[in-house]
Amino acid sequence: MRQRPGAGRPPGRPRSERAEKAILEATLDLLAAESGVAGVSIEAVAARAGVGKTTIYRRWPNKEALIVDALASAKGTMPTPSGDSARDDLLAIALAMHGERHRKHAKCFWNVVGSAEKHPELYARYRQDVIEPRRDVIRAVLRRGVGTGELRADLDVEVALAMLVGSLSLKTPKDELPEGFPEAVVETLLAGIATSGA
Amino acid sequence: MRQRPGAGRPPGRPRSERAEKAILEATLDLLAAESGVAGVSIEAVAARAGVGKTTIYRRWPNKEALIVDALASAKGTMPTPSGDSARDDLLAIALAMHGERHRKHAKCFWNVVGSAEKHPELYARYRQDVIEPRRDVIRAVLRRGVGTGELRADLDVEVALAMLVGSLSLKTPKDELPEGFPEAVVETLLAGIATSGA
Repeated sequence: MRQRPGAGRPPGRPRSERAEKAILEATLDLLAAESGVAGVSIEAVAARAGVGKTTIYRRWPNKEALIVDALASAKGTMPTPSGDSARDDLLAIALAMHGERHRKHAKCFWNVVGSAEKHPELYARYRQDVIEPRRDVIRAVLRRGVGTGELRADLDVEVALAMLVGSLSLKTPKDELPEGFPEAVVETLLAGIATSGA
Repeated sequence: MRQRPGAGRPPGRPRSERAEKAILEATLDLLAAESGVAGVSIEAVAARAGVGKTTIYRRWPNKEALIVDALASAKGTMPTPSGDSARDDLLAIALAMHGERHRKHAKCFWNVVGSAEKHPELYARYRQDVIEPRRDVIRAVLRRGVGTGELRADLDVEVALAMLVGSLSLKTPKDELPEGFPEAVVETLLAGIATSGA
């Protein structure tokens, strides 16, 4: 069973919490399968988690809400930026994102994004509840860096965000990335690739 | 029927060419559906394209070869770098990639990447025959820029490539990108986001 890092809870969790973990895990397992979103139903999750359907409905009104919560649980916690240095904060974020590539359920995210057109409401909720709050952390780091003068005053926050997130989430989980990749992305983002005369 | 830009052929194509286009188009249509790779079969493509199965087998030995050719046909042609300026060449490439986001069959690519674990050989061929040749064009531009002194001597080609490609292929087709996005990505990649004192 997956342990959420830093949860730090003693063994012997209350039954409702164990059931919730089993339900979220079952949802992710189904979501990672080839049929993706189409293969997730309250019935299938209940069967896989070994709980009754009412246990699920008590907490989640529908399949979409359950999937969004499951995706949120599969993402690691974003590091809290220290605020001392944009470079340090971006590096901490890049390393955290890079570490997530090897999580068991990366494929769930591909399947939800891949079915964005078929399930637009699910995708919109996933973006709003899971992705955008994480991106807001990065946006705040970039804006603070502009404020302190560490980053360019004319910085386009959305462009810098896309370059950081895009380069770190580009490859599929099985692709190998070279050692030191997240560090190199942050340094390249900060310094650029042109010589100073260009 | 999709017209490949710049093909410039007169109307009344030979029958074999019309059949080939219909077969590739039918493959992409099936690949873009929710079942993705699993929904593509020689039988289904033949039915949809209105041709016999032997017409397909005459040209493609199996479903994987057909899918890879269909994906290649759905990608636009990469602009040929002029070699005069890394900035100009990267900009032309960024604009071309950006333009592809609105192509009808962008979802095909998501589905193939999303089923990489289930269909590793197909994914490997897609990477080798469709993706890597395009990335090699970008790598050559970056290496030439280093050679001319326009780009940093210590440039990490794979990192710069990931930042360019990742930022431009990050969003799903329905997401809106701000005006001037590809231009801003190239300028940010060249100049970086840090102030010179950082």
